[in-house]
Amino acid sequence: MSRRTHRRRLRISDFSGRSLPGSPPGTLIVDPDSPKPVIRVTAYSADRLIDREIEDVNVIRPLLSEWPVTWIRVAGLGDLQVITRLGEMFNLHRLALEDVVKVHQRPKVEQYKNYCYIVLRAVRDSGGFASEQVSIFLGKNFVLSFQERVDQSFDPVLARIREGKGRSRTAGPDHLTYALIDAVVDGYFPVLEEFGEKLESLEEAILSEPGQFFERIHEMRHGLLSLRRASWPMRETMTILYREPIPLIDEEERVYLRDCYDHMVQIIDLLENYRDVASGLMEMYLSSISNRTNEIMKVLTIFTAVFIPLTLIAGVYGMNFKFMPELEWRWGYPFALGLMVIFAAGLLLFFRARGWLSSWRQ
Amino acid sequence: MSRRTHRRRLRISDFSGRSLPGSPPGTLIVDPDSPKPVIRVTAYSADRLIDREIEDVNVIRPLLSEWPVTWIRVAGLGDLQVITRLGEMFNLHRLALEDVVKVHQRPKVEQYKNYCYIVLRAVRDSGGFASEQVSIFLGKNFVLSFQERVDQSFDPVLARIREGKGRSRTAGPDHLTYALIDAVVDGYFPVLEEFGEKLESLEEAILSEPGQFFERIHEMRHGLLSLRRASWPMRETMTILYREPIPLIDEEERVYLRDCYDHMVQIIDLLENYRDVASGLMEMYLSSISNRTNEIMKVLTIFTAVFIPLTLIAGVYGMNFKFMPELEWRWGYPFALGLMVIFAAGLLLFFRARGWLSSWRQ
Amino acid sequence: MSRRTHRRRLRISDFSGRSLPGSPPGTLIVDPDSPKPVIRVTAYSADRLIDREIEDVNVIRPLLSEWPVTWIRVAGLGDLQVITRLGEMFNLHRLALEDVVKVHQRPKVEQYKNYCYIVLRAVRDSGGFASEQVSIFLGKNFVLSFQERVDQSFDPVLARIREGKGRSRTAGPDHLTYALIDAVVDGYFPVLEEFGEKLESLEEAILSEPGQFFERIHEMRHGLLSLRRASWPMRETMTILYREPIPLIDEEERVYLRDCYDHMVQIIDLLENYRDVASGLMEMYLSSISNRTNEIMKVLTIFTAVFIPLTLIAGVYGMNFKFMPELEWRWGYPFALGLMVIFAAGLLLFFRARGWLSSWRQ
Amino acid sequence: MSRRTHRRRLRISDFSGRSLPGSPPGTLIVDPDSPKPVIRVTAYSADRLIDREIEDVNVIRPLLSEWPVTWIRVAGLGDLQVITRLGEMFNLHRLALEDVVKVHQRPKVEQYKNYCYIVLRAVRDSGGFASEQVSIFLGKNFVLSFQERVDQSFDPVLARIREGKGRSRTAGPDHLTYALIDAVVDGYFPVLEEFGEKLESLEEAILSEPGQFFERIHEMRHGLLSLRRASWPMRETMTILYREPIPLIDEEERVYLRDCYDHMVQIIDLLENYRDVASGLMEMYLSSISNRTNEIMKVLTIFTAVFIPLTLIAGVYGMNFKFMPELEWRWGYPFALGLMVIFAAGLLLFFRARGWLSSWRQ
Amino acid sequence: MSRRTHRRRLRISDFSGRSLPGSPPGTLIVDPDSPKPVIRVTAYSADRLIDREIEDVNVIRPLLSEWPVTWIRVAGLGDLQVITRLGEMFNLHRLALEDVVKVHQRPKVEQYKNYCYIVLRAVRDSGGFASEQVSIFLGKNFVLSFQERVDQSFDPVLARIREGKGRSRTAGPDHLTYALIDAVVDGYFPVLEEFGEKLESLEEAILSEPGQFFERIHEMRHGLLSLRRASWPMRETMTILYREPIPLIDEEERVYLRDCYDHMVQIIDLLENYRDVASGLMEMYLSSISNRTNEIMKVLTIFTAVFIPLTLIAGVYGMNFKFMPELEWRWGYPFALGLMVIFAAGLLLFFRARGWLSSWRQ
Repeated sequence: MSRRTHRRRLRISDFSGRSLPGSPPGTLIVDPDSPKPVIRVTAYSADRLIDREIEDVNVIRPLLSEWPVTWIRVAGLGDLQVITRLGEMFNLHRLALEDVVKVHQRPKVEQYKNYCYIVLRAVRDSGGFASEQVSIFLGKNFVLSFQERVDQSFDPVLARIREGKGRSRTAGPDHLTYALIDAVVDGYFPVLEEFGEKLESLEEAILSEPGQFFERIHEMRHGLLSLRRASWPMRETMTILYREPIPLIDEEERVYLRDCYDHMVQIIDLLENYRDVASGLMEMYLSSISNRTNEIMKVLTIFTAVFIPLTLIAGVYGMNFKFMPELEWRWGYPFALGLMVIFAAGLLLFFRARGWLSSWRQ
Repeated sequence: MSRRTHRRRLRISDFSGRSLPGSPPGTLIVDPDSPKPVIRVTAYSADRLIDREIEDVNVIRPLLSEWPVTWIRVAGLGDLQVITRLGEMFNLHRLALEDVVKVHQRPKVEQYKNYCYIVLRAVRDSGGFASEQVSIFLGKNFVLSFQERVDQSFDPVLARIREGKGRSRTAGPDHLTYALIDAVVDGYFPVLEEFGEKLESLEEAILSEPGQFFERIHEMRHGLLSLRRASWPMRETMTILYREPIPLIDEEERVYLRDCYDHMVQIIDLLENYRDVASGLMEMYLSSISNRTNEIMKVLTIFTAVFIPLTLIAGVYGMNFKFMPELEWRWGYPFALGLMVIFAAGLLLFFRARGWLSSWRQ
Repeated sequence: MSRRTHRRRLRISDFSGRSLPGSPPGTLIVDPDSPKPVIRVTAYSADRLIDREIEDVNVIRPLLSEWPVTWIRVAGLGDLQVITRLGEMFNLHRLALEDVVKVHQRPKVEQYKNYCYIVLRAVRDSGGFASEQVSIFLGKNFVLSFQERVDQSFDPVLARIREGKGRSRTAGPDHLTYALIDAVVDGYFPVLEEFGEKLESLEEAILSEPGQFFERIHEMRHGLLSLRRASWPMRETMTILYREPIPLIDEEERVYLRDCYDHMVQIIDLLENYRDVASGLMEMYLSSISNRTNEIMKVLTIFTAVFIPLTLIAGVYGMNFKFMPELEWRWGYPFALGLMVIFAAGLLLFFRARGWLSSWRQ
Repeated sequence: MSRRTHRRRLRISDFSGRSLPGSPPGTLIVDPDSPKPVIRVTAYSADRLIDREIEDVNVIRPLLSEWPVTWIRVAGLGDLQVITRLGEMFNLHRLALEDVVKVHQRPKVEQYKNYCYIVLRAVRDSGGFASEQVSIFLGKNFVLSFQERVDQSFDPVLARIREGKGRSRTAGPDHLTYALIDAVVDGYFPVLEEFGEKLESLEEAILSEPGQFFERIHEMRHGLLSLRRASWPMRETMTILYREPIPLIDEEERVYLRDCYDHMVQIIDLLENYRDVASGLMEMYLSSISNRTNEIMKVLTIFTAVFIPLTLIAGVYGMNFKFMPELEWRWGYPFALGLMVIFAAGLLLFFRARGWLSSWRQ
Repeated sequence: MSRRTHRRRLRISDFSGRSLPGSPPGTLIVDPDSPKPVIRVTAYSADRLIDREIEDVNVIRPLLSEWPVTWIRVAGLGDLQVITRLGEMFNLHRLALEDVVKVHQRPKVEQYKNYCYIVLRAVRDSGGFASEQVSIFLGKNFVLSFQERVDQSFDPVLARIREGKGRSRTAGPDHLTYALIDAVVDGYFPVLEEFGEKLESLEEAILSEPGQFFERIHEMRHGLLSLRRASWPMRETMTILYREPIPLIDEEERVYLRDCYDHMVQIIDLLENYRDVASGLMEMYLSSISNRTNEIMKVLTIFTAVFIPLTLIAGVYGMNFKFMPELEWRWGYPFALGLMVIFAAGLLLFFRARGWLSSWRQ
């Protein structure tokens, strides 16, 4: 019953980076806590490749006219100027740019005249579930991706491009976009796996030992709820990407995007399954607590029921009547004690016959 | 168990302003409690602007032919004549006018020949959730907005027009309409944030201290239910606005309206999340109460179980048998007390071994 | 626990007027309990009007050729001959006629070659929720309405026609049909309002006083369920009426029918809200009962826990050992009593420290 | 707690007549428990009619060329040869024939080139809910119906044909098909009515008397679940029959089939209502049990609470102190008894003041 | 309460064979635990047939040009080279091949230019529910099927081809595909039947004997959940197969595929039914536990209530007052005992009158 002061606070929602009501549409406000952007440019054709971190966004423009595919990868949203200048360079709609910095967008696809804007939600499980917004602009000869911070999630994609394996170098920016989406979607599996393992160990624990599991199950359901909130719009987005005709995405790429869609559907299947399992765990936990109470109740019942008649016998022979023959008996005292033993044994036998002595849970 | 007399009454529904069954369609009845209307007219072109409060609605007509966009902003519905004359001036359908004054309409869009009628529901959290109807008529060169009372919600829009920032002066009445819708939609976020914070503090409280939270959770769920009742039709309305072709709304404005739609979807996502959380809190609260009862049960069990055998021992040596050797012993009394201590200690050890002495909640 | 003999029986369903399985389709069977029909004919043009009760249905035929709109209003379905002859006169399909007399139809719209058949469900709250079937046949120049009994629900419509207000006289039979539908739909609001008020007073009662509310909440949910069963098909019917092209209904009338649809949607919104509230009340009630039990449990615990050690002390000094020094003490008796008081006080302080003495509900 | 040996076994599912996995499609396997088929042929035109039971299916072929409508009614599926020869005679697809003998099909409509195959599920309540498959083949000039056993369900249809009432003789085989469907659909109503009455009497019983209702409610829900499983696909089938163009069904017959559809929708409405009511009953029953426990708890509390202090008083005056003035008093004994009465009365008054003596359920 | 160490671990999910996030699309990784593939080739025309196990996949190519239908049946996925070479031979998309070896795909149909790729999930109940992925490639003149291990599920199909029964030899590869699908779908029925029987015996057990059923019901629900996860996408797949035009599947085959679809719908109907039943069982079990607790509570109440007054009587006559006339009575002791008997009998009669002595469950 002790007051818990250090409990990890469950963040039910996060409104940081939300503009104030009444601010004009397309206002770019940078969250002061965002890390400064690190920009990496990778331009490649089938046989050549350049790949470097840059400081000044102006070096991008000449690359665009020179290389068939240029990938600009911005990690960190803490510098308004960089984002604005990229927006101008690629002629991006300011509402889209606003969505890039307000990092609580639902996953979605928006088609503009010269580019396609894709918002995704990436998840990771770094000691508690967390999610991050990934924004991708797909143009004729460029892919512009924004992440909230520097991480390794896109490194395998870069590695494949460097090695020039498969179609990674010969295909256009739509294939690169697919590869990024695929990396984001595949990132859901380890998180789910983590949840699955936690659920299994929790189930094990609930069945074998007493304890206070309510909060842990609650937290788990909370996490699954958050994951679900990320997954469903991801699925919708995947559906649009593989079903609706998007001019910038080649027919052949769609087979791949359908694969992403399939994965997302699988993820949601598992997720819903886990939610069911978590509900079942809560039920199981509450039932185990109630079983435990029943057990204690039973002990009390038997204890009380066995001792109460004995107390009565003692009380009877403690009465002060003048004429109580037993009191005078030579063996009166052992007789009384014997009576108590017989009573107690009789009751215990009676309770065993009714099956109340065998433990509830064998 | 004291009778609570000052409880804030939960308004389950509000039927004020509803016409009587059988009244002819299009009957305008003004709620006598409505504040008198305050009318403000803002007419602007790219380079010029007039903006003033007016008393007489007749001053509007000349403005309409002169200015590309005229915004008539009526706050307060307490004067039937004003509304009727505006209706005549803009040739509004009487059913639409009826909906303006009966302020319990569901959000909706209705297209008429020369104008488009949009009903929205604005929310605010001024010590308890409240909602207000906003009606907007969008015409070729005018926007006519009705609010239930004077408030600041549209002031930022007006400020932007005055400053002439962005497209606010150059775009037509459809952009102004969008700006008003955007202001209404953005008003949902602080209310949601308020709910989120209340939920978090409630969760904190339930986990750390005993108390009567039922009513507070109940009230919260009530509020979320009301907010939900406002939000879903808002979303439907947004869907129609950005998807269906409405002649008075420019193609370019649609991108902006899609943004409003996105916000509304986000709001509903959060809302449904909160509803889940609130259900979880109720469960958590009921479980904490039942845990507490279990705790008391356990104390009772142990108390009773420990004392009952001791009482029996006392009873036994209180019996009046003539021949009870212990009674004659020199150390009989300490022996009996010792027996009691041994019994009590044995039982306590037994209970500790079964894990019943460690508190349920560590 | 007394046997309740006078409980108002909850009618779970009503199968009266249902034909036997195997009876041929289109068989007209009149419920013997139906009241005899009262027929009122109202024929009007823009400037003239006749309106009278009739006995013989044959007087209707000449009116039809003479007046632009003739409204035949039948209240009471207890005379098979009247219905059959009206059916012949207007050439109505026998399945439609069968539906008129079997008054448990779902609301629906059926289009026939020369007329449109609309079934509605009207509700009222006359000491308990009740519903009634309203059948309307809309033809080119007539409206034929059937109600189960004479009531005032259509009187305001008639009054408006008599006064010739608005479009009531100039518009065709489709407008009259709309007016009747509107009257039926508006009749839902007072019933809902009644439910709302009952829910509020019930909530008030549950929170402030103990009592047996189960049955009342159960009855309320029952009533809401019935109302729901009437409302959803009404909404479907309204959707068809305002969306699908029905040749006999003018384009202009549709705006009005959309208004009816809006009302029906609002009604269902409220209804679903009430159902949620009623579920919440049940939960609240069950929780209040369980709180009350907890309260009693606590009193028992404290009582038992306080008295059991005292009884032991009394028992100890009631033992008959020869050598018990306290028994010889001059102040032995007060000492024992003092011991009891100290024990009792100590336990009470301990319980207060754990917060068990403060009432559960402040 | 006695082992119940004669409990009516709830058949959760029935897999009899299911072919083994891997058996070739279209394999006809006859359930050995099926009754032998009784075949009745009814051929009629507007003015003539023959109707007789036949042994040999070969007598059917000449009738087909002679009569406009021939109805072959097979009751009992226990003879493979009969079914095979009918299949050959009417050129029926072997998958359809397989469905005829495997009597656990879902209701459905299948169109083949020369005929239409309709599977229905008929229900009856003969001391517990039961269902039966009805298969109907509708051809240009024949109707071939299969039932699982001889019963009276189609007798009214035959009677109408014999009497030549209404369109029964003049219309084609599509009307006969409709009449059969109508008979099957109408058969749901008595079963529902039976459920409704059982629910009402159960509700009455739960509210007025204690008892073990769990199993009865459980069985009821079980039955409603089975009925539901039959009804929903029936509704789908009806939808197809009245909406989709089926060449063999005349436009005029559709009005009648829509009537069947309406009935089926009504049935499902009621059914879902009953399911809600049954859930409510379970809740009510569980709540009544918990109330009863509360009642017993209360009696225990009061009993214990009243007697425990009295026992203490007795214990106090049973102490053996030398110096206890009350023991010497002339009226000490009556004084002690009086003390007990005063204590007991005081406690009872205290409990009445808290409202614990008034019965929970008035 | 003993720690259970040998509990069968509920596999909540299985991620084996899942590629690492970031691995390039179409990467074939073979699960090292997969059994080595056994390849069997069956080529047939209407009058001839060859059928043998092969080691080298190169023997397949000449068969393809020679025989109208060649069925290559691969059982076991443990050899990457075999799969790759089959992929090259039939020109299969590498994403499809990837799905073949990652055996946790959802059932689906994918159309490629020259073949159609079908993924199915087969189930079996070999001491606990298990499922297996079946992949089928349908081409113009071949069927290529992959299973996870060697089993008998496709043997009946092979047997029919060998015997040349029905259309099995004359029809094309689409009929063979149908036969395989049919075999997979029919495999669901025994599993369901197993579940049905377990549910029935569990129900029987819960109603007749006490015990710890929670875990068993939980496991059952777990299994049904897994089965459900397999069944729904199977149904979707069947819908696509029989509804959407697939060039490689003949119109005539569709009738057969519709049959598979019907079976799948039936399976899901049953499954959902079972899930409802399992929920009901849980409810029933929890209610039976709570009834049992009530029973024990009652025994305690009666025991305590009966003995407490007797103890008081004994206490009263154990008091040491000087002037207690009863103590001097000749028959004082029998009088006291008689008083106890009368009290006990009176209480028992009182309890029987309230119906508390009759057992809860008769």
